[in-house]
Amino acid sequence: MAKNTVPRHIGFIPDGNRRWAQARGLPKQAGYAEGIEPGLSLYEICKERGIVEASIYCFTQDNTKRPTSQKIAFTAASVEFAFEIARRGAALLVVGDETSAQFPKGLKVFRERQGTGMKVNLLINYGWEWDLGGLRNGGLRSREVSRLDMIVRWGGGRRLSGFLPVQSVYADFYVRDEYWPDFEPQHFDSALSWFRRQDRTFGG
Amino acid sequence: MAKNTVPRHIGFIPDGNRRWAQARGLPKQAGYAEGIEPGLSLYEICKERGIVEASIYCFTQDNTKRPTSQKIAFTAASVEFAFEIARRGAALLVVGDETSAQFPKGLKVFRERQGTGMKVNLLINYGWEWDLGGLRNGGLRSREVSRLDMIVRWGGGRRLSGFLPVQSVYADFYVRDEYWPDFEPQHFDSALSWFRRQDRTFGG
Repeated sequence: MAKNTVPRHIGFIPDGNRRWAQARGLPKQAGYAEGIEPGLSLYEICKERGIVEASIYCFTQDNTKRPTSQKIAFTAASVEFAFEIARRGAALLVVGDETSAQFPKGLKVFRERQGTGMKVNLLINYGWEWDLGGLRNGGLRSREVSRLDMIVRWGGGRRLSGFLPVQSVYADFYVRDEYWPDFEPQHFDSALSWFRRQDRTFGG
Repeated sequence: MAKNTVPRHIGFIPDGNRRWAQARGLPKQAGYAEGIEPGLSLYEICKERGIVEASIYCFTQDNTKRPTSQKIAFTAASVEFAFEIARRGAALLVVGDETSAQFPKGLKVFRERQGTGMKVNLLINYGWEWDLGGLRNGGLRSREVSRLDMIVRWGGGRRLSGFLPVQSVYADFYVRDEYWPDFEPQHFDSALSWFRRQDRTFGG
């Protein structure tokens, strides 16, 4: 059966920042700051379209093993983005291991959801093993994050790369080949149109 | 960096049996038996290409809520397939909840891997919650199943539908629109060619 509604909860994997920079002869780390404005556009579009919840892959514990210049750049971009959407009224939750030095201290307050607008979950210093590790003590560490209806990835990769494995089990996966800094609102409209055409049976 | 090798471990989601039957004016359950021969072809091709391990989605705990005629048909097809590949020398492991009445009794012996050929894991009466539930007691219930390099799905669905969420975290996901009973060896060759073109960074 076709679904006529918009997805309630969408995951976003904004990949390709480094390749975008390299394609312009810039150092890899220069790509991350270019992802902030597209992220703010996407946030506004999600609000307009009535999306209830959005989860965005900022950086993982594995990513923090990259060269320092990159780590500084993606951390700074993530922090700037987080504060800006909080300022714009998002109900912000940051999901990631706050006990490590890689976690930006200024974001610790967002380990509990703050605000009452559109729910936005930012995965910051997140790891799927860290997340599932919570099951040994009663529940996922991402337990405040609901089931995903759709995941949209930029940069052409056809894999989840550890993104919320439990919430992803029934998510429809839509991939754009464009690099994330080249985001256009039309990518999102195409994703929504595509989603409406999917047959979602949930194993029944 | 491009990968020149073949994937070590591939997951297969052979979807579309019911739609295949309906498209021919047959009852839905008639599609499952038509999936056995394609599965045997795929098994032989994987052996030829040196695939070390294959995991195949047969049926889930959710699937068993379908009408009885379908449940009987997919269970029978799964059992027939399991015994035939065991006879052909596969190192067979069945992964699923053997404590339930929906689990085919004759397959209980395969809850421990039997044989020394190519590793084949059949997900039979499997559930992702059942699988992760093992983490409360020290480990996944699918802990004998290794990390997946690639997942190939037939029938057009761009989602995992609960397929081995932990082993899937870094798997490249390749989708064919053909229904599973229409499997052709060329689908598999296309999947392998596609896999070689993927950039696999594992978050590094």
